[in-house]
Amino acid sequence: MSIRFALLGAGRIGRVHAKAIAANPDATLVAVADPFKEAADAIISRFGGEARTVEEIETAGDIDAVVICTPTDTHADLIEKFARAGKSIFCEKPVDLTIERVRQCLQTVEETDATLMIGFNRRFDPHFRAVRRAIDDGRIGNVEMIQIVSRDPGPPPANYITSSGGIFRDMTIHDFDMARFLLGEEPDTVFATASVLVDPQIGELGDFDSASVTLATASGKHCTISNSRRAAYGYDQRVEVHGSLGSVAAENQRPVSIEVATSAGYERPPLHDFFMTRYTEAYAAEIASFIASVKAGKKPSPSGADGLAALLLAEAALKSVNEGRAVRLEEIGG
Amino acid sequence: MSIRFALLGAGRIGRVHAKAIAANPDATLVAVADPFKEAADAIISRFGGEARTVEEIETAGDIDAVVICTPTDTHADLIEKFARAGKSIFCEKPVDLTIERVRQCLQTVEETDATLMIGFNRRFDPHFRAVRRAIDDGRIGNVEMIQIVSRDPGPPPANYITSSGGIFRDMTIHDFDMARFLLGEEPDTVFATASVLVDPQIGELGDFDSASVTLATASGKHCTISNSRRAAYGYDQRVEVHGSLGSVAAENQRPVSIEVATSAGYERPPLHDFFMTRYTEAYAAEIASFIASVKAGKKPSPSGADGLAALLLAEAALKSVNEGRAVRLEEIGG
Amino acid sequence: MSIRFALLGAGRIGRVHAKAIAANPDATLVAVADPFKEAADAIISRFGGEARTVEEIETAGDIDAVVICTPTDTHADLIEKFARAGKSIFCEKPVDLTIERVRQCLQTVEETDATLMIGFNRRFDPHFRAVRRAIDDGRIGNVEMIQIVSRDPGPPPANYITSSGGIFRDMTIHDFDMARFLLGEEPDTVFATASVLVDPQIGELGDFDSASVTLATASGKHCTISNSRRAAYGYDQRVEVHGSLGSVAAENQRPVSIEVATSAGYERPPLHDFFMTRYTEAYAAEIASFIASVKAGKKPSPSGADGLAALLLAEAALKSVNEGRAVRLEEIGG
Amino acid sequence: MSIRFALLGAGRIGRVHAKAIAANPDATLVAVADPFKEAADAIISRFGGEARTVEEIETAGDIDAVVICTPTDTHADLIEKFARAGKSIFCEKPVDLTIERVRQCLQTVEETDATLMIGFNRRFDPHFRAVRRAIDDGRIGNVEMIQIVSRDPGPPPANYITSSGGIFRDMTIHDFDMARFLLGEEPDTVFATASVLVDPQIGELGDFDSASVTLATASGKHCTISNSRRAAYGYDQRVEVHGSLGSVAAENQRPVSIEVATSAGYERPPLHDFFMTRYTEAYAAEIASFIASVKAGKKPSPSGADGLAALLLAEAALKSVNEGRAVRLEEIGG
Repeated sequence: MSIRFALLGAGRIGRVHAKAIAANPDATLVAVADPFKEAADAIISRFGGEARTVEEIETAGDIDAVVICTPTDTHADLIEKFARAGKSIFCEKPVDLTIERVRQCLQTVEETDATLMIGFNRRFDPHFRAVRRAIDDGRIGNVEMIQIVSRDPGPPPANYITSSGGIFRDMTIHDFDMARFLLGEEPDTVFATASVLVDPQIGELGDFDSASVTLATASGKHCTISNSRRAAYGYDQRVEVHGSLGSVAAENQRPVSIEVATSAGYERPPLHDFFMTRYTEAYAAEIASFIASVKAGKKPSPSGADGLAALLLAEAALKSVNEGRAVRLEEIGG
Repeated sequence: MSIRFALLGAGRIGRVHAKAIAANPDATLVAVADPFKEAADAIISRFGGEARTVEEIETAGDIDAVVICTPTDTHADLIEKFARAGKSIFCEKPVDLTIERVRQCLQTVEETDATLMIGFNRRFDPHFRAVRRAIDDGRIGNVEMIQIVSRDPGPPPANYITSSGGIFRDMTIHDFDMARFLLGEEPDTVFATASVLVDPQIGELGDFDSASVTLATASGKHCTISNSRRAAYGYDQRVEVHGSLGSVAAENQRPVSIEVATSAGYERPPLHDFFMTRYTEAYAAEIASFIASVKAGKKPSPSGADGLAALLLAEAALKSVNEGRAVRLEEIGG
Repeated sequence: MSIRFALLGAGRIGRVHAKAIAANPDATLVAVADPFKEAADAIISRFGGEARTVEEIETAGDIDAVVICTPTDTHADLIEKFARAGKSIFCEKPVDLTIERVRQCLQTVEETDATLMIGFNRRFDPHFRAVRRAIDDGRIGNVEMIQIVSRDPGPPPANYITSSGGIFRDMTIHDFDMARFLLGEEPDTVFATASVLVDPQIGELGDFDSASVTLATASGKHCTISNSRRAAYGYDQRVEVHGSLGSVAAENQRPVSIEVATSAGYERPPLHDFFMTRYTEAYAAEIASFIASVKAGKKPSPSGADGLAALLLAEAALKSVNEGRAVRLEEIGG
Repeated sequence: MSIRFALLGAGRIGRVHAKAIAANPDATLVAVADPFKEAADAIISRFGGEARTVEEIETAGDIDAVVICTPTDTHADLIEKFARAGKSIFCEKPVDLTIERVRQCLQTVEETDATLMIGFNRRFDPHFRAVRRAIDDGRIGNVEMIQIVSRDPGPPPANYITSSGGIFRDMTIHDFDMARFLLGEEPDTVFATASVLVDPQIGELGDFDSASVTLATASGKHCTISNSRRAAYGYDQRVEVHGSLGSVAAENQRPVSIEVATSAGYERPPLHDFFMTRYTEAYAAEIASFIASVKAGKKPSPSGADGLAALLLAEAALKSVNEGRAVRLEEIGG
């Protein structure tokens, strides 16, 4: 049985998923919906399927699952629509930028017993997975302190910032999910510091480009997250977990690993400069995991609840910056 | 225009090329030939095309190029056949295990002005390419000394050894090609030492499993190659080029790059354990290069002459081991 | 002219300094004072000098400088005594565990115009110095975010904890000084989280063994510090500075740098397991710097004010943990 | 009991040993002999002892051991002189540049039952020792293939070349000793290639500046050595041993280990640029080992026989270059 897919949104992340679907022997791309016809056609000509409207997909008998890659403000509506239509749903993060709307949407998912997976792709990166596996295998004993460094190669354009929900909901949210993936215990307190060091325009839009966040759990585990919207040397994505018996760290990735030694020293090339090349394997494994869950009739992971949990941490971080204090998750309904 | 391909030989390396062809927007897999029908069908069901005989492909009007992945002893015949049929030819190394037959075959290629590329995939590995680029960019000055370490994870089965032509023609041949790719000058002398340290059965079959080779050029450049049929830690593939202004080295590759630190020390996972996973990107880039050459009507590289040159070095190495002395290429007609 | 030294306190850190003095061509060890005669004699027999009392040293005409390595609660008194006696003073950190006493003592130093250097040895580590130099040379642009990881191999005994002043005054204080050394701007806010994850006894004594601290400056620079009293893999001492043009990081140090590759992976030995072997070069360079300052008649660095500044950060960190909020330095008189 | 030393030769290597003797609690520097009085005095003023002639030292009752750091052509005479005088002898390599004279000298050592250690300092480097220990501990199984890379930062002056005995006797000799230290079996065959790539003047003097050597043992183990008189990035000193269960490698050493990441890539500083800073610890451990042997009344290692064995390999290498063939040690009396 091949899972029959419809892709909603034919932008660059949509294309990544279309490619993963086409390459997966257990899946077929049947339909692509995008108001911008050329975008849909470009994907169709390369990876198969046909152009359809969202409404056609909603009622189609030959579609098992949808992949939602549309703008963020349409996610919750589409999840609800396809939950009611009985389709399995993979949705890019976030469900929505407001807690209330996310809760409402997840309520619908629960009532319809829909299958929903949220696109926290980093959980599927082979290096981060191996970190988790090292923990699960007991190699570092009890997890105590985590350090996540997550820096973009360069700041996004102003119009992206405007609709992004801010650095915590847009960028740190991946790190919040990673923290939850690795801590083995829910954070209950968040402290965050944020500032504008990279691009004054980001500050003018009310956002930050540099942030340091500390999460703490009830038993006293810590996780610190360091974010910057700029890293001259590429896409900096590191995780290190310190435990009672040792540590495990995922190293940065570069497209080419050579070393040139001259009188100036030993030089290796910069890192990947783009999240899509950095996370190529993660995106493919993510969709493969979704397909496997759908085939097996199991609820996929990360779930809608994982999406909500990360958003709550983002909310708490923002509150912490504004109030200069540690914020407990329970204060914001977490 | 899409280049229309026929695949000859549906074994594991054939499958690698079929995948690369299917994924390449400028190519189509039209036909697959293999006496073992199930193998051909498995590839067809996944990557397209239909089953045909070699003869059908030879005379087909809808085939532009063939990829030869059949057993070594059929390579020369097939090259000649398809050269005469006017197809562009990609052939896995080696053309043949005997110098004489290779020369004869290349003569036919020349007479028919055929397009022939030999599958020295490592030239297309992004890391080795970057080494070459660093040299071409003048970053290390004049090339002086090269060191190649090339070790398999484990020895092949006895029946493979029997038909392989021996370690120099089968394994070191890749390193000879790499040496030529990087030296910037043809080696004119070969000295080789070889022994049986890994598997006595290999010795009983008249072959070696461990070899150290030194190549020298007229101007005094050296290249040393270290081969072993066994490396407990994986597929060890390193190249280092020392020049007047510095050095450049390609590092080993591992599927997962984490580091676990415990009281025992800092541990990173083993290397890739299989040439296909190690050289995934190289295989795709290799076929892409062939396709681009065919589209552009240019002669591809590495050529049949490159195949011959590497084989001559293998021949010289074997003679050197037998006679305990440095062998000049000209002694064997190089 | 050779600087004539008296050593106060013949414990293990005293021995380190005695060795550095003896090996320095510009210094001579003239006297050693320690109530435990065997300890003083052991140093004298190896590095020269004679046993004297503190009082004899105070009035001696043949002593230019003293090195104070006595218990912490004697530091301030001894600094004052030797400031009045006109001796140059090198004192191990901290000046005292209370802010008030430190201010009082530094007042005396100022009134007597005494020469005082505080033993923040890490500033003299060649690797951390090189980090600072890379910053000063403009290689990473403007400093934005710093990350310090500082972990002991194992927790100290309970009686050490009791007199240590707690993790922030005893352990993090080095990191606070390092942060000030590298930030290029004074931190004005401190947020700290601390817990007991390593040794419950430390918690029973009212202290913590695991801490995460974030410092922020007026212009928005951040520094995060991660401390643990236990690292199974050795003495973990890392600093990374992120700037507008790149980053610079000091790597961990190990006594032996080999790598063993087996089927289990690639393994390097653990780090140094003791601060004295880790910072051997730093201790020697520290005393050399003090000697050079004394010879040149200049005020040495780090100064008493640096000692106070680090202690204020420790105080603020403790207050932050207790109150669950960011604490401004000015709140505690900083 | 403190071993009482005389130092013969107050040049830069003599100074290194004087420092090691002065710092060793089991040794005392009693006398220094050097025709150049200022050199001797400089050492005496720093590390103790008094100036004496070689003859005075020969007959002195207060000297237990001599350290010979004089020009190479005096080594054999001095060894014989002090062997007869009953002093323990540490002599810098080589004993002599000719095999015959070495044999003669060692004959005297044997007849007088003298204690003689040859200065192959690299055996005492902590990293190379750890490589040996990993082998001895069985971590890599049976040793099969060794690779030694040994490159100087830059070529020596012409007058040094003239008296050096050529690259094999002067530079490769250290690598020959390292090969013997690690192989666990004597090499019986040598093949060498050498050329002039760095400095034409070296060629005019009849020497080489670039060499590749392969050693082989009776059981088929190989060791390749790659030498160059120039490495733009510093003093390149690597050893890698490949065995049946894995490999062990000693990494290069740099004085400062930081990494600067910018848009150009990740850069670490160059290596040590001088053998004395690279091998500081090795020199100290070497003399400590000699002192320990003398104190214990044991024959030290490496011995005079080790000095001869390395010289025989150098001789064989030179013969191999000249004759373009593998040379068996037995051909030159090995």
